[in-house]
Amino acid sequence: MPFSKKNLPLKSKNISDWYNRLVIEADLADYGPAKGTMIFKAYGYAIWELVQSHMNKLIKAMGVDNVYFPLFIPESLLNREKKHLKGFSPELAVVTIGGGEELEEKLIVRPTSETIMYQAFSRWVQSYRDLPILINQWCNVVRWEKRTYPFLRTSEFLWQEGHTAHATHEQAWEMTIRAMEMYTKTYRDYFSLPGYVGKKSPAETFPGADTSLSYESLMPSGKALQSSTSHDLGQNFSKPFEIDFLDKKGKKQFVWQTSWGLSTRSIGGLILAHGDDQGLRLPPELAPVQVVILPVVLDDKILKFCRQIAVRLEENNVRIKIDERDDERLGFKINKWELKGVPLRLEVGAKELKSKTVTLVRRDSGGKESVKLNQSAAKIKSVLDQIQKNLFNKAVNNLKNNTREINDYGRFKTQMSGQKGFIQAFWCGAPVCEEKIKAETKATTRCLPLTAKKEKGRCIYCRKPAEHRWYFAQAY
Amino acid sequence: MPFSKKNLPLKSKNISDWYNRLVIEADLADYGPAKGTMIFKAYGYAIWELVQSHMNKLIKAMGVDNVYFPLFIPESLLNREKKHLKGFSPELAVVTIGGGEELEEKLIVRPTSETIMYQAFSRWVQSYRDLPILINQWCNVVRWEKRTYPFLRTSEFLWQEGHTAHATHEQAWEMTIRAMEMYTKTYRDYFSLPGYVGKKSPAETFPGADTSLSYESLMPSGKALQSSTSHDLGQNFSKPFEIDFLDKKGKKQFVWQTSWGLSTRSIGGLILAHGDDQGLRLPPELAPVQVVILPVVLDDKILKFCRQIAVRLEENNVRIKIDERDDERLGFKINKWELKGVPLRLEVGAKELKSKTVTLVRRDSGGKESVKLNQSAAKIKSVLDQIQKNLFNKAVNNLKNNTREINDYGRFKTQMSGQKGFIQAFWCGAPVCEEKIKAETKATTRCLPLTAKKEKGRCIYCRKPAEHRWYFAQAY
Repeated sequence: MPFSKKNLPLKSKNISDWYNRLVIEADLADYGPAKGTMIFKAYGYAIWELVQSHMNKLIKAMGVDNVYFPLFIPESLLNREKKHLKGFSPELAVVTIGGGEELEEKLIVRPTSETIMYQAFSRWVQSYRDLPILINQWCNVVRWEKRTYPFLRTSEFLWQEGHTAHATHEQAWEMTIRAMEMYTKTYRDYFSLPGYVGKKSPAETFPGADTSLSYESLMPSGKALQSSTSHDLGQNFSKPFEIDFLDKKGKKQFVWQTSWGLSTRSIGGLILAHGDDQGLRLPPELAPVQVVILPVVLDDKILKFCRQIAVRLEENNVRIKIDERDDERLGFKINKWELKGVPLRLEVGAKELKSKTVTLVRRDSGGKESVKLNQSAAKIKSVLDQIQKNLFNKAVNNLKNNTREINDYGRFKTQMSGQKGFIQAFWCGAPVCEEKIKAETKATTRCLPLTAKKEKGRCIYCRKPAEHRWYFAQAY
Repeated sequence: MPFSKKNLPLKSKNISDWYNRLVIEADLADYGPAKGTMIFKAYGYAIWELVQSHMNKLIKAMGVDNVYFPLFIPESLLNREKKHLKGFSPELAVVTIGGGEELEEKLIVRPTSETIMYQAFSRWVQSYRDLPILINQWCNVVRWEKRTYPFLRTSEFLWQEGHTAHATHEQAWEMTIRAMEMYTKTYRDYFSLPGYVGKKSPAETFPGADTSLSYESLMPSGKALQSSTSHDLGQNFSKPFEIDFLDKKGKKQFVWQTSWGLSTRSIGGLILAHGDDQGLRLPPELAPVQVVILPVVLDDKILKFCRQIAVRLEENNVRIKIDERDDERLGFKINKWELKGVPLRLEVGAKELKSKTVTLVRRDSGGKESVKLNQSAAKIKSVLDQIQKNLFNKAVNNLKNNTREINDYGRFKTQMSGQKGFIQAFWCGAPVCEEKIKAETKATTRCLPLTAKKEKGRCIYCRKPAEHRWYFAQAY
């Protein structure tokens, strides 16, 4: 198997081995002792904390408050909305012993919190004045997996789940869209990850939702990663959970609800999308270390100069690290920080000390540049911005180059058995066509943009009239 | 039962009813459907987020990184350190079914993470260069309880647990102390809650620790709340978990470890310590809303003026809320925000609008004051500081007034059957005396300050020579 100079399998040759090795070598994660579980190491968890910090501002700006509901859901509660349960039952972890005794009623470790939250909503909502309820929680959830693929597929993962209740369907639908806009901003501005946004087909809709929206990004394997979802739940939960209120006219109404989530799976997408043969490439907004300062020799004067630079950058809210380890050579350190995906490296030696300059090396392009110390903070902030945008633009180009309008089912099949990627193709909306396409090509409908214009076309499968080109891809 | 004007049982008459009612009425929490569980509502959870935000800065300043380990611990792993397990076994929640199948090995829902973390440490540590390991995690933990007392006693609670590994015992001991200093700062500066800091007696030490330090605060009932702990674990885990390393001389050594934690129980202590007959009183550093602005009438001009004030305060990082509800009268709103413990209330009416002033009302003292709009931000920030200190000073006085040096066992017993509080009394160190005192008075040794000077005295129980006055109290 071909390896990079970092002893990393080449991404271009074996992406699965590359991924698994990189996650360990970059100190992002380790495997937990129970099947399907992972340990978030400091470097990997710091990425999640940055995601949380950015998103908490956006969540708050929507008027949504953070809360925390219990981990354990009594089995009877989960059974109350049967359609919703069906999707989860094979994935549940069940507590049967508590405090040394067999429990009278089994407790489910939450796979998601609709049922436990909505039981509380039914107590909290009496009048239109109690609406809207706008809450979010950051927590761990469990859905049983036998094989771990760190971040991407784990039995326990971390996420945020937003849940809202409204007096009208119009308000709930608006919230569903706003939440997806929030994810779109998060992926574009922080993850530097473009994607297609739209509604899912009925077969791909969250059980219990009337409409699901999703953000679909492209992975290097040509598959689509469903990177977040926002659900218009209609009154599917408010009726069984009896979440009703008296409206302004004193009439009893059931609330209209939404739920929306983004998980640590997103970090798996981030690694896959931006990484290269040399390792990780982190967009500056999500990089725990944005700038690593490497003293070329560990000499007191040079270290002092490094600290001077560091102070300037920290004052400008740049996340920096000086690597002062004395048991690693410079070349080793360069490889290490490239592998860890730090966006910008400063090399500081005698030359830089003498000329009061710093030498910048970009992780995204390998570009080198020398700047005066007194201009360094402004320059570095601007280069970090450029890196953020450059990673996004590269990903946009990649997405465009791997999205094809296809009208012929033969070509559709050829594409899906080769390079894959997204296909825009007419679909008549009949579930049977969707099923056949999936069975024959492994591709599923990913989404239909809300702004998709009506066209006159013919279903890629059955050739009957069709109005919309859907995005198709194989799911990650 | 006597009630306040807020329909709240009087704290001074029935503290337990007062507490349970207040938690609900102030919108801090609700009960979960599974026994022993609670829901953190937005207002209660926001207090915890403020604790996290303050503490994360202090934790980072100690060089400690946040991580996340799995929720599920295989039973065999928990059994590896028997002494430590003994304390937890009656409190465990056990998963026996996963993915629809009976599990081969039961999984324990973490009651604390020593075992799962230290198994990983044994893989991560090879050389002295891998040390120290300094990590912390914010997470949920489960210890079975049948009765819920929101925040104070719940089956699932939230906490941070710090875990470190060092090359020498000296470094581990220093870390144990630094962690306790961090808690001391947290309680004093943010919770406005004084307490006694010191080491626990062997009987009260965490199973698995060589030495435990604790922060003991006084609750209104005269009982002591163990508000956080920091443990010197010695090599009690590193030996069974085989966490060893080659030191600089190439000799194999076992690491020295610490662990330390603070939980959402602290919020229970906060409520109990500062609340009064009118409800909650939050120290400004932990108040989700520091200043509530109440328009005396909901008139456009007045609302505009309120928003002007709000902007000034927000620019100065004051957390504010304007209560614009049109279905509640001013008197109702005043009661509501007093009950919710907001430190400062601004009443804004025609008089204020005309004179371009704002009227401040302090929650801690009821004091009223009028200030010019253009001086309002600076003034309000200074008043918030005063409130923070005033709550602390009151609590310090209360602690002093309820701490007694007692040399006579008869008086000790009388005190513990009446007013309670802390007693400083000589104890010879014999476990049998400690046990007898506990059996006869319900009081336990709480801690011995690390700086306690040696004195010549006689054990309060057996009258044999004793060197130190320990703090005794009944445990919450």
